[in-house]
Amino acid sequence: MDIASLIGIIAGSGLIILGIYQLTPNFIVFVSVPSLLIVAGGSLAATLLSFSMKDVFGLLRSIIAVFKKQKDNLPEEVETIVELSPIARKSMQELEKSLANVGNPFLRDGLQMVVDGYNPNEIRDILETRIENRTLREKGDANVLKTMGKYSPAFGMIGTLIGLVVMLYGMAEMATSGEDPMAVLGGGMGAALITTFYGSILANMIFNPMAVKFETRIEKQNTLQLMLIEGVLLIHARKHPLIVREKLNSFLRPRDWKKPEE
Amino acid sequence: MDIASLIGIIAGSGLIILGIYQLTPNFIVFVSVPSLLIVAGGSLAATLLSFSMKDVFGLLRSIIAVFKKQKDNLPEEVETIVELSPIARKSMQELEKSLANVGNPFLRDGLQMVVDGYNPNEIRDILETRIENRTLREKGDANVLKTMGKYSPAFGMIGTLIGLVVMLYGMAEMATSGEDPMAVLGGGMGAALITTFYGSILANMIFNPMAVKFETRIEKQNTLQLMLIEGVLLIHARKHPLIVREKLNSFLRPRDWKKPEE
Amino acid sequence: MDIASLIGIIAGSGLIILGIYQLTPNFIVFVSVPSLLIVAGGSLAATLLSFSMKDVFGLLRSIIAVFKKQKDNLPEEVETIVELSPIARKSMQELEKSLANVGNPFLRDGLQMVVDGYNPNEIRDILETRIENRTLREKGDANVLKTMGKYSPAFGMIGTLIGLVVMLYGMAEMATSGEDPMAVLGGGMGAALITTFYGSILANMIFNPMAVKFETRIEKQNTLQLMLIEGVLLIHARKHPLIVREKLNSFLRPRDWKKPEE
Amino acid sequence: MDIASLIGIIAGSGLIILGIYQLTPNFIVFVSVPSLLIVAGGSLAATLLSFSMKDVFGLLRSIIAVFKKQKDNLPEEVETIVELSPIARKSMQELEKSLANVGNPFLRDGLQMVVDGYNPNEIRDILETRIENRTLREKGDANVLKTMGKYSPAFGMIGTLIGLVVMLYGMAEMATSGEDPMAVLGGGMGAALITTFYGSILANMIFNPMAVKFETRIEKQNTLQLMLIEGVLLIHARKHPLIVREKLNSFLRPRDWKKPEE
Amino acid sequence: MDIASLIGIIAGSGLIILGIYQLTPNFIVFVSVPSLLIVAGGSLAATLLSFSMKDVFGLLRSIIAVFKKQKDNLPEEVETIVELSPIARKSMQELEKSLANVGNPFLRDGLQMVVDGYNPNEIRDILETRIENRTLREKGDANVLKTMGKYSPAFGMIGTLIGLVVMLYGMAEMATSGEDPMAVLGGGMGAALITTFYGSILANMIFNPMAVKFETRIEKQNTLQLMLIEGVLLIHARKHPLIVREKLNSFLRPRDWKKPEE
Repeated sequence: MDIASLIGIIAGSGLIILGIYQLTPNFIVFVSVPSLLIVAGGSLAATLLSFSMKDVFGLLRSIIAVFKKQKDNLPEEVETIVELSPIARKSMQELEKSLANVGNPFLRDGLQMVVDGYNPNEIRDILETRIENRTLREKGDANVLKTMGKYSPAFGMIGTLIGLVVMLYGMAEMATSGEDPMAVLGGGMGAALITTFYGSILANMIFNPMAVKFETRIEKQNTLQLMLIEGVLLIHARKHPLIVREKLNSFLRPRDWKKPEE
Repeated sequence: MDIASLIGIIAGSGLIILGIYQLTPNFIVFVSVPSLLIVAGGSLAATLLSFSMKDVFGLLRSIIAVFKKQKDNLPEEVETIVELSPIARKSMQELEKSLANVGNPFLRDGLQMVVDGYNPNEIRDILETRIENRTLREKGDANVLKTMGKYSPAFGMIGTLIGLVVMLYGMAEMATSGEDPMAVLGGGMGAALITTFYGSILANMIFNPMAVKFETRIEKQNTLQLMLIEGVLLIHARKHPLIVREKLNSFLRPRDWKKPEE
Repeated sequence: MDIASLIGIIAGSGLIILGIYQLTPNFIVFVSVPSLLIVAGGSLAATLLSFSMKDVFGLLRSIIAVFKKQKDNLPEEVETIVELSPIARKSMQELEKSLANVGNPFLRDGLQMVVDGYNPNEIRDILETRIENRTLREKGDANVLKTMGKYSPAFGMIGTLIGLVVMLYGMAEMATSGEDPMAVLGGGMGAALITTFYGSILANMIFNPMAVKFETRIEKQNTLQLMLIEGVLLIHARKHPLIVREKLNSFLRPRDWKKPEE
Repeated sequence: MDIASLIGIIAGSGLIILGIYQLTPNFIVFVSVPSLLIVAGGSLAATLLSFSMKDVFGLLRSIIAVFKKQKDNLPEEVETIVELSPIARKSMQELEKSLANVGNPFLRDGLQMVVDGYNPNEIRDILETRIENRTLREKGDANVLKTMGKYSPAFGMIGTLIGLVVMLYGMAEMATSGEDPMAVLGGGMGAALITTFYGSILANMIFNPMAVKFETRIEKQNTLQLMLIEGVLLIHARKHPLIVREKLNSFLRPRDWKKPEE
Repeated sequence: MDIASLIGIIAGSGLIILGIYQLTPNFIVFVSVPSLLIVAGGSLAATLLSFSMKDVFGLLRSIIAVFKKQKDNLPEEVETIVELSPIARKSMQELEKSLANVGNPFLRDGLQMVVDGYNPNEIRDILETRIENRTLREKGDANVLKTMGKYSPAFGMIGTLIGLVVMLYGMAEMATSGEDPMAVLGGGMGAALITTFYGSILANMIFNPMAVKFETRIEKQNTLQLMLIEGVLLIHARKHPLIVREKLNSFLRPRDWKKPEE
């Protein structure tokens, strides 16, 4: 995650806390152990019923990978390929030597296949299968997060229902014993609503944003890797660097196009 | 279902119960026979109107199958195929003998077709049709569960409406006869809300998690079986084990790749 | 509709009525003529604005067709084709004589085309166009039902809003004239909620289940008819019954596979 | 729009009005100028932010076109093509003369291309592009309506929030000055709810039904025009009328099939 | 944005303000700093967790681009291509000279490729890749807006929950100390609702309309650019202007067709 975003997130959270503080300096009213137990327990149980322990732990590993600073720089990778294309036109041995400097493992594997003499159809086939299967796996991870983002507000509402039922029966008892039921309404309903609050915060501050992050990452990775396949095949065809650049530019925003140095 | 998940589910449910216990030790307030009759009866009737008795019973059989521990191990099946490939390069008779040790019935049927002399297009055709039709059938099962996951909260809400109407008319009668209607509000509304509670619990603890489990299982089975088709065709083409591994590796996460033993 | 389902639906409805009875024996509180007029009138008007009279009446005809007991038996039809395949290998005259015994009109038309000497591409073309257009028409019917399943709760809510507005203005008048507004709150709100209740019941007991039934029927019919096309083409190619069975088996669950009688 | 539907819509609206009349003869409580201003103003502003003035006015033109009685009669157009096919087998001059009697402009343009000597691929290409682009344009129109059907209840809710805030602050002021806040609760909340009522009526009686009408019309037009392309190509191939009928019948319900007159 | 729309938006907003003014001239009750902090802070934090700072700033750049008056005029571009087609039939040099007058950069790049001697498949390939990648990037932008349109009402609701909890605990304290809790109910709940109001306004007046604008723009750009590809290829094939017009007309509404000047 880039530092700018991190600052933004901290600032955003700070604004919320400041907003709450202006309403009440008494943060303790938002702490409710039963509410936490119901939301966390319910979400955990429903998630493990929906997926397996292995899926959930695999997700944790993926989350760490995703929140590391992404280095997918489409224009830069186009540049790398354009620079490699005259080398490949010279000789395969030269290309093989340059492979050590290629940072992206997907590109490196593709070029290795060019060096190893695979034909274009095989290269496209193998690499597209890799993209498809990575997409499927990462959509699976995003799906776990989206599902958790649905369960947590659902259990928030279930907790609120539990709280309301308990409170309303309490009020009924008080009314029959002659006390004023309104006296407990406030606190009881406040406690009931905290469970919904927990569920919404979990969904909208944690699960949903992470699910969106996974999904946009899949899209970006796919665009990048589809461009890399195109680039590997252009290198395999020993195309002139000018044509390589023209073709790969179609993956970039016009404002990111570089003029060939002539 | 793996044991780890089972423990997780029990722990999760335990947390909910602990949370409720902290609110009230009087669990009996959550037991309401009319609420149960309305939610269960309504969901049953709506489900049988949407599907047939046969669909619903077929689903029970599928649920049992799904919750048995899944043995789909993609890297292991890749290994099996890589090990079979040199045998097929030797002779078809050898391959036929090895078939008895192949655990996965889909792979075994595919290899049997190789032995029986079907051509690659026929093999791909028959096996892809099997995948398509299994997918359709399992999506049908998942659809029954998803539909039940929509009906149960709907009938929860219908039950709450019924409870509220009964309570409000009761209050109106009390008010006209001079009693304090607030005395019954608490208990009546508590009873009404329990139906929504039942509907939500059914949807979020049973129907929706099972529907998600079915859907993720379909995805995983499809990835596995598509890989098996690819593997069967590579064996049919008598490809070298190194190339078989390279091609099938594109179905795996890079961290699951095995180096060929040389 | 199979008898088992019918019993299930009656039992389910019985449970709801029993549940309501335990809350109040006074079913009359759930009868509200204005509520019925608003929900029924609104749904009718919105449906006729969305579709034409002809679409809505065509739907009635389709509903009757769908609720008749479905006789789509995939394994049985596979058996029929396997039995016809040796006849077709003998002579077209024999096949034409057997056509009278073929129950499924789609299969009969396909085989008639084989007898009439159409080529495989023409047969596939004509039959796939029939599937596509049947699907489109039936999706249209399902869409009418789904739309009604959205309008009825919407007009339920509109009716409740009307009821609440009327009640609240009534309360305001009573308050200004010195009466206790709480006295009318109960009955007024109960009456208002009945409209939502009607809308939910219509959607969840009638429109949505029927829409689901239409949609699952489309899927099942498509699977069946795609299998029949495959079967007709195998008969056209005069394939051996063993191969016909092998190919068509891929449309069935493995547990429905029949061993060829040898 | 067919007259039957028009009667149905008037009857439906009449039922709603009758229902409301039974609740209160005082229709004036449903008239609220501020509510109307908020819902109409908000929906207008949001729609013009989402689309351009030109899109919104273009929609008005399309609405008028859609609500005119639709004359798409699939079986009739099949008959027209079957009748034209022997003419085309005789001579192109004869076909060109008959074109003046062809009512459907899409069919006429297609046959004109046959007369002008375009080849089948060009004809299919040009006509399919026309279908695609008409679909895109009409989906755009439907999308404007669907978006308005989402904004109007949203602004209904925003208006209700405004009304509630105003009312609650008013109650707070009365309570601090010693008056009974309950006296204004009724009327204030009634006024607040009317905005939600307006938003729901606009969405469910106007925008959503029209959006559905546009979408079903797109489907029907596409089925018709795809059939016409098929028919034009069969005429181009100078097929026998019996085969033309057989092929085009696959676009019709079996009950609409006509037997060829022999 | 066209001026007509701008006037419409201002008029729409004016109607809302007029509507509110009729309810209360005291606009200050709608200003709540804590509400603003919670909604803005929460939406900011959740958006930056979902995307990166770079995505969000890139969006701002795109918004400015989108709200500039769109000059996509499909019929006009068709005319341009029809006018260029006889020039290309004469000589490539003439076509190259005319390129300076072509306003649309996508069309100009396509024609430049024709001049540079690329073959039709390469031209189609490169230009379609550009469309695909522009679509992906712009869908990414629209997705940021749609996500913000989901977060802002969610944090509106979270803010309302916070406000309600604070208010209810305050009421409970007052009740135990013998004061009338109803005195604070009004103002407290009013303040709580303002957060939902802010969230709804942000979503329905800013984020959702902009997201819709982006999505419709993508569709229109794609139709235009697909037409331009077709036009470039027709020019490459040196087709007669009459045929160019006939083919490109299929992208236009029939009422926008121009008769060729003969």
